[in-house]
Amino acid sequence: MLREAVHHTAHGSFAYPVSPDTLRLTLRAARGDLQRAAVLYWDRYGSSPTLTAEMSIAAEDDLFTYYQADVQLATRRFGYVFLLDDGKQTLFYTEKGFCEDLQPNIQFHYPYIAPGDLWEPPEWAQGAVVYQIFPERFANGDPTNDPPDVEGWEEAPTPASFKGGDLQGIIDRFQHLVDLGVDVLYLTPIFKSPSNHKYDTADYYTIDPHFGDEETLRKLIALCRKHGIRIVLDAVFNHCGSEFFAFQDVLKHGARSSYAHWFNIEGFPVQTDPPNYETFAHQIATMPKLMTQHEDVKRYLLEVAVYWIREFSIDGWRLDVANELDHEFWREFRRAVKRENPDALIVGEVWHEASDWLRGDQFDSVMNYPFQHACFDFFAKGTIRARSFASRLAKVQVNHCQAVNLAMFNLLGSHDTERFLTSCGGDLRKYALAVAFQLTYEGAPMIYYGDEVGMTGLTDPDCRRGMVWSRKEQNGELLRWYKQLIALRREHRALRTGRCRTVWADSVSNVYGFVRFQGREQIVVLLNNSPQPQTVNLREINWPVKMPRQVRDLLSDERFKLGELVVPAYGVRILA
Amino acid sequence: MLREAVHHTAHGSFAYPVSPDTLRLTLRAARGDLQRAAVLYWDRYGSSPTLTAEMSIAAEDDLFTYYQADVQLATRRFGYVFLLDDGKQTLFYTEKGFCEDLQPNIQFHYPYIAPGDLWEPPEWAQGAVVYQIFPERFANGDPTNDPPDVEGWEEAPTPASFKGGDLQGIIDRFQHLVDLGVDVLYLTPIFKSPSNHKYDTADYYTIDPHFGDEETLRKLIALCRKHGIRIVLDAVFNHCGSEFFAFQDVLKHGARSSYAHWFNIEGFPVQTDPPNYETFAHQIATMPKLMTQHEDVKRYLLEVAVYWIREFSIDGWRLDVANELDHEFWREFRRAVKRENPDALIVGEVWHEASDWLRGDQFDSVMNYPFQHACFDFFAKGTIRARSFASRLAKVQVNHCQAVNLAMFNLLGSHDTERFLTSCGGDLRKYALAVAFQLTYEGAPMIYYGDEVGMTGLTDPDCRRGMVWSRKEQNGELLRWYKQLIALRREHRALRTGRCRTVWADSVSNVYGFVRFQGREQIVVLLNNSPQPQTVNLREINWPVKMPRQVRDLLSDERFKLGELVVPAYGVRILA
Repeated sequence: MLREAVHHTAHGSFAYPVSPDTLRLTLRAARGDLQRAAVLYWDRYGSSPTLTAEMSIAAEDDLFTYYQADVQLATRRFGYVFLLDDGKQTLFYTEKGFCEDLQPNIQFHYPYIAPGDLWEPPEWAQGAVVYQIFPERFANGDPTNDPPDVEGWEEAPTPASFKGGDLQGIIDRFQHLVDLGVDVLYLTPIFKSPSNHKYDTADYYTIDPHFGDEETLRKLIALCRKHGIRIVLDAVFNHCGSEFFAFQDVLKHGARSSYAHWFNIEGFPVQTDPPNYETFAHQIATMPKLMTQHEDVKRYLLEVAVYWIREFSIDGWRLDVANELDHEFWREFRRAVKRENPDALIVGEVWHEASDWLRGDQFDSVMNYPFQHACFDFFAKGTIRARSFASRLAKVQVNHCQAVNLAMFNLLGSHDTERFLTSCGGDLRKYALAVAFQLTYEGAPMIYYGDEVGMTGLTDPDCRRGMVWSRKEQNGELLRWYKQLIALRREHRALRTGRCRTVWADSVSNVYGFVRFQGREQIVVLLNNSPQPQTVNLREINWPVKMPRQVRDLLSDERFKLGELVVPAYGVRILA
Repeated sequence: MLREAVHHTAHGSFAYPVSPDTLRLTLRAARGDLQRAAVLYWDRYGSSPTLTAEMSIAAEDDLFTYYQADVQLATRRFGYVFLLDDGKQTLFYTEKGFCEDLQPNIQFHYPYIAPGDLWEPPEWAQGAVVYQIFPERFANGDPTNDPPDVEGWEEAPTPASFKGGDLQGIIDRFQHLVDLGVDVLYLTPIFKSPSNHKYDTADYYTIDPHFGDEETLRKLIALCRKHGIRIVLDAVFNHCGSEFFAFQDVLKHGARSSYAHWFNIEGFPVQTDPPNYETFAHQIATMPKLMTQHEDVKRYLLEVAVYWIREFSIDGWRLDVANELDHEFWREFRRAVKRENPDALIVGEVWHEASDWLRGDQFDSVMNYPFQHACFDFFAKGTIRARSFASRLAKVQVNHCQAVNLAMFNLLGSHDTERFLTSCGGDLRKYALAVAFQLTYEGAPMIYYGDEVGMTGLTDPDCRRGMVWSRKEQNGELLRWYKQLIALRREHRALRTGRCRTVWADSVSNVYGFVRFQGREQIVVLLNNSPQPQTVNLREINWPVKMPRQVRDLLSDERFKLGELVVPAYGVRILA
């Protein structure tokens, strides 16, 4: 047994409650090393194991197999050890390491499932389809509020250019979202700011006049309500814009300003070129960093967060540069937001491994860039093959509890990346395959405006072109593909909130497959990321509910006996 | 390279700030597998490594070697990868796994050292010597407040018996603590309760009348102040006693009581024999569990916590059964307590791996039972030898940041265990060796009243005998040993707050050694846990500051050249 590979912690994603009396335990071992993994458990006020749960394989990455079991105790106080068998040796794995016999004080403890520790992201966000709009570029519904010198809608945008998109535009084009079938609308910032992206807030309490006013926002929100669509706004609390009143006060009054401590200023007078104060990224003078460790700064921003929930009933916040504020700020943020609306969603912008923010005290979800990177490498660039892709997905999955995985904003692109179709070199077959994956896999797939009609674009500012509304220029077939997949997702609960396991990952054929399952429903998705048709033997799949006699392709409505099945080149089979 | 053994996370004890611009990184690899480990790092807004830090060995357990390096960046935004070399192969280890070449988006991120995330336990607790008193058994200073039917002081206590110990007794015997040289006094509960242990609180706002009154507590606290001794009380918030007003109200008014939701009651009327409500442990009717997830319960208990700090200036709380309340309760507890006094100490009772509570948002320290278990196995029972002992210590150490390790309440025994001298089978040589270890090792050694004069006793209630005050019955030599070691600890900063690394762990001779170092001071402690003298070659020790020419034994004042040195049977050398 490769002892060095075995890993468990009695917290985080390796031990979490899934109900008031049930704990989900994960154990990691070297890939393929074990023949059996089991949990021996008992009420920890007793002294020795009374119950056994066999563990099953939940995920595999390049080096490890992850085993899982749910264990239940009415008293909710768990002592447990693992029993591992590699065919040569049977060992206990405990908090104090490996042993052949059980001794006192060696067990893992999950001391108690406290009711206050049970949590999950809002149910409505789990498995939801999210649509991201960059308002300046979606639709210009009210030319009277345009900024001066707007460029043509179809002109290539520059970092500082304006096109006149606004909230009325979103209202006018709302039927597009309804037809697409999205559940959540996420808008990048809409508060007053001099830029087109509005990540340099001038006033957190005012809708940018080029986007509309409170009335326009209320209309948009009413429309969302009417169609059962949730709306999430963008909170930029890491930094403000240089026009923000507090920074202006410091510019004017220097060290005597009562807002001087809101910023990290190297010396007075404040200079802006180059800035002698801390900013977002490298010396971006228009984005002074806010010192959120101070009570008054914190209070100001939390009041903003609560205000828009209370007064406008928005459904949640996406948090910009969320990984550069202190954790304590986000804990207080969560408390304030959830006190106002327990069902509000909190999504952080974290591009890397984010488990430290997803433990129940801070965020419900993050922008899932590791998912994006895996799709980029596998579908767009082909730099990794099916088994590596499965491995990368597994690494993300095992870092979070299931409910968080269901709420992760799984994106192919955003306002901060090249558009995914462009990454695919314009190859629509590869792109459509990636979209099929995104819209069936575990998580909350996030569609960046225009991706659904085949928009292309290099990274910022090119990925922020004006939305293509001309039917002629839209890719109608692609749009139908999105609609078909989203409709499937709506019809099949397992595709929204089912558990998810890899069932196929063959680097030779480059076919990747996974199953979503919930209750008696099981849906296998097979993706052939190769230019040739590939064959999969459906009998070799580990069907989690039970091996079916025949399956139906939910896309084509064809029926197949359980045997060899051809997946077309760059094709997908969604089998139930 | 054994890839499965390599481990790092960009949070917790594997990545934490030690100053506003410096991060301490830990990497785990298979024991002895690597010839070199280094961190390549850069400002994460750049794209590739600009700086390199070589890592050195910080700890080793049975399976793993832990490497550490401190990395510094003025911008506080870290991207990093590890460079690992096992002599056969050089590989990068990244967030996405192993690779031979660096690609985009694979690095670990410690995104930003936010000022609000910097934390450590109160400085006064780091390395402090703690003395634990069970007030009913320490000294009877005021016979007029004795409960009825007290038994003789020297009689063997029973679970329910009383002896009359009280706060006045502690005041009367205070010079004992001063002479011993302790820094912190920890009292088990002193609030009104019908039991001798007072873990079944009847009134959180009243000193138990058999222990004294507010005036007595004020006198005791004044005495502590005068001698520079901090005082920590015991907060029992997991459950109350059945005499607590809220529970009494529920007994009287049943489901109509406004306190009914403070408890988890299966049905009305409430029954106490057997209890039809949730209790501490198994159906202990006198200890109804409190439902701390409710705002009003939380508010009540947090007001208690703040009250004694504000009104009596106590220096901290030890939290009973701390692992069975929700984490959110403790987060709010920390916020309330630290708002009242940022320098207050919070110590949880957690008997097992406690890192989930020691991340900065909940506790400063815990009762270090894993330390106790290791000492029990190595010194008292001899069931593990030096190398296993070193391994067990390493496992605890690597789970926490250094400042937490310095504040851990390292105990040999408590009111909940057999006394350590009894565990040693009465063998004073083994016991004295364990004490030398406890009082020189990293942490805050906690002395259970009477251990210092050689008291014995099996587990509760026998470990709660009346304190031995008769000089004739006290072990004077043992008491001098405690005083000498505590005095050394006070004289040498490295013994209090220095870093700590194992330098010797030989299972054949059973000699274990470690070094404490800080600035230019380095002190090596060698413990011979065998009945024969053993030889250690001081040249083979990895002196962290620099190899000295000669050393002095701080206990005997002997000087030795750096070569072979004999450590007597069950003897200790403290070398500077």
